[in-house]
Amino acid sequence: MLSTRGYAAKSASAALAPFTFDRRDPGPDDVLIEIAYCGICHSDIHQAKDEWGGAIFPMVPGHEIVGRVARVGSRVTKFKEGDLAGVGCFIDSCRVCASCKDGLEQFCEAGPNWTYNSTEKDKKTPTFGGYSSQIVVDERYTLSVSPNLPLESVAPLLCAGITTYSPLKYNGVGRGQKVGVVGLGDLGHMAVELAHSMGAEVTVFSTSPAKEKDAKRLGADSFVVTKDPGNLSPLANRFDLILDAVSAPHDLNAYLNLLRRDGVMVLVGAPEKPAAVNAFSLITKRRKLTASLIGGIRETQEMLDYCAQKNIVSDVEVIPMAKVNEAYERTLKGDVRYRFVIDMKTL
Amino acid sequence: MLSTRGYAAKSASAALAPFTFDRRDPGPDDVLIEIAYCGICHSDIHQAKDEWGGAIFPMVPGHEIVGRVARVGSRVTKFKEGDLAGVGCFIDSCRVCASCKDGLEQFCEAGPNWTYNSTEKDKKTPTFGGYSSQIVVDERYTLSVSPNLPLESVAPLLCAGITTYSPLKYNGVGRGQKVGVVGLGDLGHMAVELAHSMGAEVTVFSTSPAKEKDAKRLGADSFVVTKDPGNLSPLANRFDLILDAVSAPHDLNAYLNLLRRDGVMVLVGAPEKPAAVNAFSLITKRRKLTASLIGGIRETQEMLDYCAQKNIVSDVEVIPMAKVNEAYERTLKGDVRYRFVIDMKTL
Repeated sequence: MLSTRGYAAKSASAALAPFTFDRRDPGPDDVLIEIAYCGICHSDIHQAKDEWGGAIFPMVPGHEIVGRVARVGSRVTKFKEGDLAGVGCFIDSCRVCASCKDGLEQFCEAGPNWTYNSTEKDKKTPTFGGYSSQIVVDERYTLSVSPNLPLESVAPLLCAGITTYSPLKYNGVGRGQKVGVVGLGDLGHMAVELAHSMGAEVTVFSTSPAKEKDAKRLGADSFVVTKDPGNLSPLANRFDLILDAVSAPHDLNAYLNLLRRDGVMVLVGAPEKPAAVNAFSLITKRRKLTASLIGGIRETQEMLDYCAQKNIVSDVEVIPMAKVNEAYERTLKGDVRYRFVIDMKTL
Repeated sequence: MLSTRGYAAKSASAALAPFTFDRRDPGPDDVLIEIAYCGICHSDIHQAKDEWGGAIFPMVPGHEIVGRVARVGSRVTKFKEGDLAGVGCFIDSCRVCASCKDGLEQFCEAGPNWTYNSTEKDKKTPTFGGYSSQIVVDERYTLSVSPNLPLESVAPLLCAGITTYSPLKYNGVGRGQKVGVVGLGDLGHMAVELAHSMGAEVTVFSTSPAKEKDAKRLGADSFVVTKDPGNLSPLANRFDLILDAVSAPHDLNAYLNLLRRDGVMVLVGAPEKPAAVNAFSLITKRRKLTASLIGGIRETQEMLDYCAQKNIVSDVEVIPMAKVNEAYERTLKGDVRYRFVIDMKTL
C-alpha cells in the first residue's frame, strides 16, 4: 500500500485537517499520479458538510485533479511515467451497462464509482479525492492533459469545464447561434468561454453589474443585469440555448420565455428545492427544459483536447493546502473569480 | 354576407344559446363548408367562461369542425363542391414569419387567427367557431377529410388528434419504443391509439381502475393505477417518452423519474398553476421536459391521412345542439368517453 498525505473532513461539522491514508499499489491497468493541483468545487463543500446525505467520513474531497504520472501498471498503454494526467468526478463505473457502453459513464446504471465519498468497485473500500499527494486510477478513467496550458488552470476543466462543454456540444451549439448564460460563476465563466469559442453570440445574465468587465473579457457579446426584470422582456424568443448555472432559487420561467421556438434551457446548477415551471412557457414555443451532468470519459478527453487547441482554461486563484477552510468560506460567499485551486506542493 | 345560425355564449356567466350572425361571402381563395359535426374541446369551456381572460362575446366556440364543401372561390384548387373538409384551431396566420414558413403556423409570431374568440386578418372582425351551420375559410387553412371514416368520429382529430400526433412524431416515436400516457381522457385516448399504431409499447397511467378495459381496447399494453405511488417506482428509467395529458395539478417528478436516459416528457395538458420540477429528476438522466401545441396545417393534413389509412378515430358521444350546456357540465365532471361531438343537423 502507498501511504498518502491529504486533508480530510472527519465529520460534517469538522474543518478539513491533515489526514494520512493508504492508496492501493497500482495494478496492471493502473496509473499512479502525483497530484500537482486540485480544484475546489462547490460540491466538495456540500459533501464535506453532508448536505446531500450519506456522507462517508473521513472524507478527502476533490475531483478536479491534475498531476504527473509517477508509475504505470504493466498493461497500461495510454500513459508513461512523466506524462501529465487528470482525474475528474469518477474513477470507475460498471463498464457493462448501456450508458457505460455508450461512453456516458456518468449515467452508469449501477452508479459510477465517484472520485471521493463513494467506494471502489469492491463496493467497500472508500474512495478518497484529490486533496492529497497522489492517486491511483485505472487508465481507462484517467485523462491525458496537454503540456501547453498552465496546469493549475486546467484542473477545473475536469468538472466545471466538462459540465458546461457537454451540454453545449450535445445541443449542437455553433456559429451564429444565440446562447444565454445565467450566472457568471465557476460554471458560468467556463460556459461563456466555451460557447464563444464555438462561434455563438453569448449573452450573460447576472445579478452583479461588477461582473460585466469579466464577462466581456471571457467572450460575452452582451451583459444583462437581471435585478431589473424589465431588462429581460425585450429579449423574449431570442435564444437558441440558455445554460442556467445558478443554484440559488430563481425564476426559470423568466428565462424560458427568452428561448425561441424549439429552444433549449439546460440546468447545470442544481437548486435544492423544486423550481416552479409554467407549462405555458414551454407550450407556446415547444421549448425544452433539460439538465446535464458532467460528461463521459471520451467526451471529457475531447473537451481537454479542445481547450488545449483553443487555449481555454479556467480563471483560478491558487491557494496553499492550509488555506482550504478559508477558501470554503469564501466560496460560500461567492468571493472567488472563479475557482480556487489547491497547490499540492504546499501539502 | 351569409346569414349563419349557431350557439353562442353572450357573457362569461351565460349558458350557450341560439345566435344568428353573418359570415363573409367566400372570396376567391375561400371554401364555404356546411358543418356536419363539431367536437366539444375542454378549451371551449375555458374560453366561454373567460377563464383565460380576454374573451370576446358573443362567442361561438368550436374548433373541431368537419363538414361538406358547399361552394369554392374562383382560385380554389384543393377542394370542390361536395368534398369533405375540416377546420381546426386556427383559420389563418401571418404567413410570412419563420414559423409560418416552416409550416408551423400554430407558433405564428404574430399569433395565429384562432377559429373563434379571436379576429380575422383585419384584426377587427371577430372569428366565430364551429357550433354553427357553416364556416368560410381560406383553402390553405382547410383540411381534406377522407370519406372512409365515420365523420362524427373524425371531428376530434382536428384538435385532440393533432395535439397528440404532433409530439409523438416530433419526438420520433416508433417500433419498440416504450411510451407512457398519463391520463386516459380526450387527449390520452387518442395518444394511446396513435402511439400503439406507430409500433410503441404503450403504458397508460390513470387514477381510474375502471378505465383499464378501454385502455387495452385502444391499444395499451399495460395499465398502471396511479393512486398507489408504489405502482410507479418499479417502472423507473423505463420510458422513451411520456405524454402527460393531465391538466389537474399532479407531481411531474414522479413521471420524470420513469424516463430512461435522454427520455422526453411532453406536456399536452396545461395545468394553470406552475408545476414543481426537481432539477435532480432531469440531471440524473439528462431527461427533457417539453410541451406541444396542436400542429401546423401540413402536419394536421398528414395526421388526418395517417388516421384514415390506419383506421384511427376518436371515441365520441354524439349529442344534439340543444344539449351543449349539459355536455359542458358532464365534460367538467369527466363524464364522457371521450369526446362530445355536436350533430349540426340538430341545430
